[in-house]
Amino acid sequence: MPQTSPAPTSYSFLGPAGTFTEAALAQVPEAAGKTWRAVNNVGEALTDVVSGRSVAAMIAIENSVDGGVTATQDALANVPNLRIIGEYLVPVSFDLVARHGTTLADVHTVNAHPVAYAQCRAWLDAAVPGHGHIPASSNVAAAAALLENDQADAAIAPPGILKHHDLAVLATNIGDNPNAVTRFVLVASTSELPAPTGADKTSLLVELPEDHSGALLEMLEQFATRGVNLSLIQSRPIGDELGRYRFVIDADGHILDERMADALLGLRRFSPNVTFLGSYPRADKRLIEFTDRYDDGIFIEARDWLRALIGQDPA
Amino acid sequence: MPQTSPAPTSYSFLGPAGTFTEAALAQVPEAAGKTWRAVNNVGEALTDVVSGRSVAAMIAIENSVDGGVTATQDALANVPNLRIIGEYLVPVSFDLVARHGTTLADVHTVNAHPVAYAQCRAWLDAAVPGHGHIPASSNVAAAAALLENDQADAAIAPPGILKHHDLAVLATNIGDNPNAVTRFVLVASTSELPAPTGADKTSLLVELPEDHSGALLEMLEQFATRGVNLSLIQSRPIGDELGRYRFVIDADGHILDERMADALLGLRRFSPNVTFLGSYPRADKRLIEFTDRYDDGIFIEARDWLRALIGQDPA
Amino acid sequence: MPQTSPAPTSYSFLGPAGTFTEAALAQVPEAAGKTWRAVNNVGEALTDVVSGRSVAAMIAIENSVDGGVTATQDALANVPNLRIIGEYLVPVSFDLVARHGTTLADVHTVNAHPVAYAQCRAWLDAAVPGHGHIPASSNVAAAAALLENDQADAAIAPPGILKHHDLAVLATNIGDNPNAVTRFVLVASTSELPAPTGADKTSLLVELPEDHSGALLEMLEQFATRGVNLSLIQSRPIGDELGRYRFVIDADGHILDERMADALLGLRRFSPNVTFLGSYPRADKRLIEFTDRYDDGIFIEARDWLRALIGQDPA
Amino acid sequence: MPQTSPAPTSYSFLGPAGTFTEAALAQVPEAAGKTWRAVNNVGEALTDVVSGRSVAAMIAIENSVDGGVTATQDALANVPNLRIIGEYLVPVSFDLVARHGTTLADVHTVNAHPVAYAQCRAWLDAAVPGHGHIPASSNVAAAAALLENDQADAAIAPPGILKHHDLAVLATNIGDNPNAVTRFVLVASTSELPAPTGADKTSLLVELPEDHSGALLEMLEQFATRGVNLSLIQSRPIGDELGRYRFVIDADGHILDERMADALLGLRRFSPNVTFLGSYPRADKRLIEFTDRYDDGIFIEARDWLRALIGQDPA
Repeated sequence: MPQTSPAPTSYSFLGPAGTFTEAALAQVPEAAGKTWRAVNNVGEALTDVVSGRSVAAMIAIENSVDGGVTATQDALANVPNLRIIGEYLVPVSFDLVARHGTTLADVHTVNAHPVAYAQCRAWLDAAVPGHGHIPASSNVAAAAALLENDQADAAIAPPGILKHHDLAVLATNIGDNPNAVTRFVLVASTSELPAPTGADKTSLLVELPEDHSGALLEMLEQFATRGVNLSLIQSRPIGDELGRYRFVIDADGHILDERMADALLGLRRFSPNVTFLGSYPRADKRLIEFTDRYDDGIFIEARDWLRALIGQDPA
Repeated sequence: MPQTSPAPTSYSFLGPAGTFTEAALAQVPEAAGKTWRAVNNVGEALTDVVSGRSVAAMIAIENSVDGGVTATQDALANVPNLRIIGEYLVPVSFDLVARHGTTLADVHTVNAHPVAYAQCRAWLDAAVPGHGHIPASSNVAAAAALLENDQADAAIAPPGILKHHDLAVLATNIGDNPNAVTRFVLVASTSELPAPTGADKTSLLVELPEDHSGALLEMLEQFATRGVNLSLIQSRPIGDELGRYRFVIDADGHILDERMADALLGLRRFSPNVTFLGSYPRADKRLIEFTDRYDDGIFIEARDWLRALIGQDPA
Repeated sequence: MPQTSPAPTSYSFLGPAGTFTEAALAQVPEAAGKTWRAVNNVGEALTDVVSGRSVAAMIAIENSVDGGVTATQDALANVPNLRIIGEYLVPVSFDLVARHGTTLADVHTVNAHPVAYAQCRAWLDAAVPGHGHIPASSNVAAAAALLENDQADAAIAPPGILKHHDLAVLATNIGDNPNAVTRFVLVASTSELPAPTGADKTSLLVELPEDHSGALLEMLEQFATRGVNLSLIQSRPIGDELGRYRFVIDADGHILDERMADALLGLRRFSPNVTFLGSYPRADKRLIEFTDRYDDGIFIEARDWLRALIGQDPA
Repeated sequence: MPQTSPAPTSYSFLGPAGTFTEAALAQVPEAAGKTWRAVNNVGEALTDVVSGRSVAAMIAIENSVDGGVTATQDALANVPNLRIIGEYLVPVSFDLVARHGTTLADVHTVNAHPVAYAQCRAWLDAAVPGHGHIPASSNVAAAAALLENDQADAAIAPPGILKHHDLAVLATNIGDNPNAVTRFVLVASTSELPAPTGADKTSLLVELPEDHSGALLEMLEQFATRGVNLSLIQSRPIGDELGRYRFVIDADGHILDERMADALLGLRRFSPNVTFLGSYPRADKRLIEFTDRYDDGIFIEARDWLRALIGQDPA
């Protein structure tokens, strides 16, 4: 009797428990009550999805202070058949934690993920002058390590760390930017599109056809001439030589919006390589604004007009 | 028994016999052996076509020295349901003719169509200093009038006028520009499109959406972003107030070329008023050049890609 | 004793007395009380200016119904050292006049300048069905001819014609467009610039560098990237072959405005041939609107910034 | 007697000895024989320059595989009065090193800088399946740590590490991309410009005026309309909120090239914040190519033409 593999039900995220990524996953209604798999890096998370082990993976894609998470952007470029199906925002704040009994004056070395360290640098330089830094793979891991060895005197950790580890908080909210936020995306292996909501985002990877001054300009015109605004554009090296880039793009709207579909057609004709990463509801639920001239009805009417001119029946 | 009106077989042209327009009509194989109706102005010619009296009408649309024939351009804007189905070039040269016995020294007043007069002005100023000008509705009419009254001493006339009128030639080739040429179009009332030849032209009338600095730029981008070159662009007043224009456009290519069809879609979405005047073979039979990236196949492939993404079967 | 030629004091205009051109000249305060020279065509008017016979010449440059006056546009392209120093608007309305005793029912043939005839065509077709048309060099001349011969039964004439000729008015205001207006310019041979008023216009003739699809687009960008709006853009054949055009341009602003000066620099670098026809106050005295970012101060500040970077003292 | 602080003579670089940054500094003729200060991060290096402790600092700015070094890009944005005065390329290759006696089969944990680790990941996954990773602040530090503790069994290190530490090489050239290269810049606190060489680069930081779809397009047009090519464009968050970016730009040419100076003027007028980071010779010494129309002479001629029109003497 043939055996079919059961449909996956787990969700993968960058662990351990207590990370901001876990906080993002907690925002997903469908994930409630399911198994949450803590993994070590974005590669493992995506592998879970591609292999069918997990339904979806939550991964950080951009930080308001540090910028695009390049490991994620590159992974999405290199792992095929992935689709972003949702976007989530998590406010980022940091505490300084230590073993019980440690005071701020005792701190000489701080363990922290490099990105978090960079975001707390001003506070640390003022409060812990002359401190050293040990890089960690995650802030939760940095905090946990305090209990395992004494290489560091303190760690930068997310709020709520005391739920997971028996540590003391030396200071709260030590990030340099009080409004810092990290953007996460939920990634699945599916070709089904989330339904348009009017407040959607479309993510793309686009290579430029050649290294000439007008190529980027021409790519942007594909959006501008259809009234499509970009909320993110970032270059990443293709990796084969200096000066060759692909662009990570978030565009306002859904592939089922006529103006976006038409922009994608233009992009595809222009670029040697376009990857569609998905259309999905924006985390901030802000409705996309566009002028009437880019309304679906305008596109449909123009198509009917052209069909009549060339003697085709309307589709 | 019901009577059906017979299909028209005549061709209308700006007469009388001997005009450059007649020379253009002589280039049309289909018109050979049919009735040629000489009419008085472009309005009459188009009325013949719209009313079904003539199969088609030959009308001048541009002169290499004097520019667009505005009466024709405006008539095409105002008479609906017309299509340009062919384009023809006629070299323009002028003779100075007079009654027998007249010498150049006897000439004080010259009868001529104003456009022809303008094109012979330098020669006349040198050879007939201080002469006066009487405007005529056509040069052939100017020549004919020499035999009817003595208001003028000479007339500017097309070569071959002696075949029609008993006059003497005082000078040949008096036009200021030896390479002058007039472009004619054959206009019919049909929705059938001439088949693409690879050496085609598409004529359009386009209104700009509003009077802002970017509107014309944006219209031109509709062509440029699809690799469509323009061989003619001319503004004509819409007529209701100063500063409001429509544009007369000749674009390289056929509406059945993918890049042209896509440009027309873009134009239609952008403009409050686009009139498609026809796609037809160029008179000079020069093949349209365009880079590979605007090839039909590129457009079709992009459409298939998009359809797969949104889960539509390829059409 | 050496004799110096006296400074010219006359103003030239397209005559005879009673034309719209004369009405335009009547709007020029400086011309009041001076000699007004009626000439036969725009060429003569410009010759008067270039030769020093007249201070300035008033010439029609655009009609709201018929479009640019191509003879004027071409003359300005071909006669060097001319500058437009003022702009004037004259409402265009037409009367139908005849010899005393003639009634509308008696009219079979109408004498009129072709442009005026075209603008009254709808009224004439309705009121005088089946009439014939005799073209005249001006409407005033057409009216005058009624008293000299009986070739025509009526003439189209400007209002006020009865001041000059003993005729009867058969109908008033017979133009198809009640808001028709003609734009005139006052042309002089001077290099002095009228002072900026904030409501100015700059007229230019610009050739495109070559016949490629992007050239016109690129020319327009010279204006758009400096926030300069165009109120007129019209193509005129250069005349040597089909498909080669120069552009007649009216741009909002004065050459002494920083944004206009910078646009002119861009144009000059781009185009093989730019002719500056003048900066002068607009007839409608409408202040030019532009966003703050194109303010003179922004340009000056940027220049100072650059000078500091490259170690130049501010000029 | 007043004491003047002596001119600095040292050069700072990211240490310790043996890093790629040191290899870059070795390419600077002026640094030969001077003191080289090894520092711990880019912030320290720039502080040395600003404080006057060092003449200049060598810092990594871009890696062909990993992209822009964001810490450097952000530091250049935030530390004022710095200028890039030179650019250097260092091929990147990696060896796997261990304590004497260790074989590849013994390796379970690898110490490495995260960027280096990412670039060797494919080789490590194949050769050391199931290995763990400990992040280090530099690869040289990772190698040195092998001799201090046994947390890791091996380290990724630059070629030549054996000159500094008594270790054994387990494998050479383990990077995934054999052509990987890192780009370094030499930064000083000076307002003097390196002389133009015809093979120069200009580095800029530019903020967009507001978050609208056309702003980036408009910025790029400032370069494109002056024929200036970009070799790098990368967005970095300004840091105050998601969706606000500044752009890190490398443009072909020198600020003393007319076309670049004009592009900078356009940028400065457009952007709320432009930082000029310097014009300096390219590492690859490739001459900048541009069409004749952007030649210095064209700019100078246009300026003289404009000055004549507005009655200014040529400067």
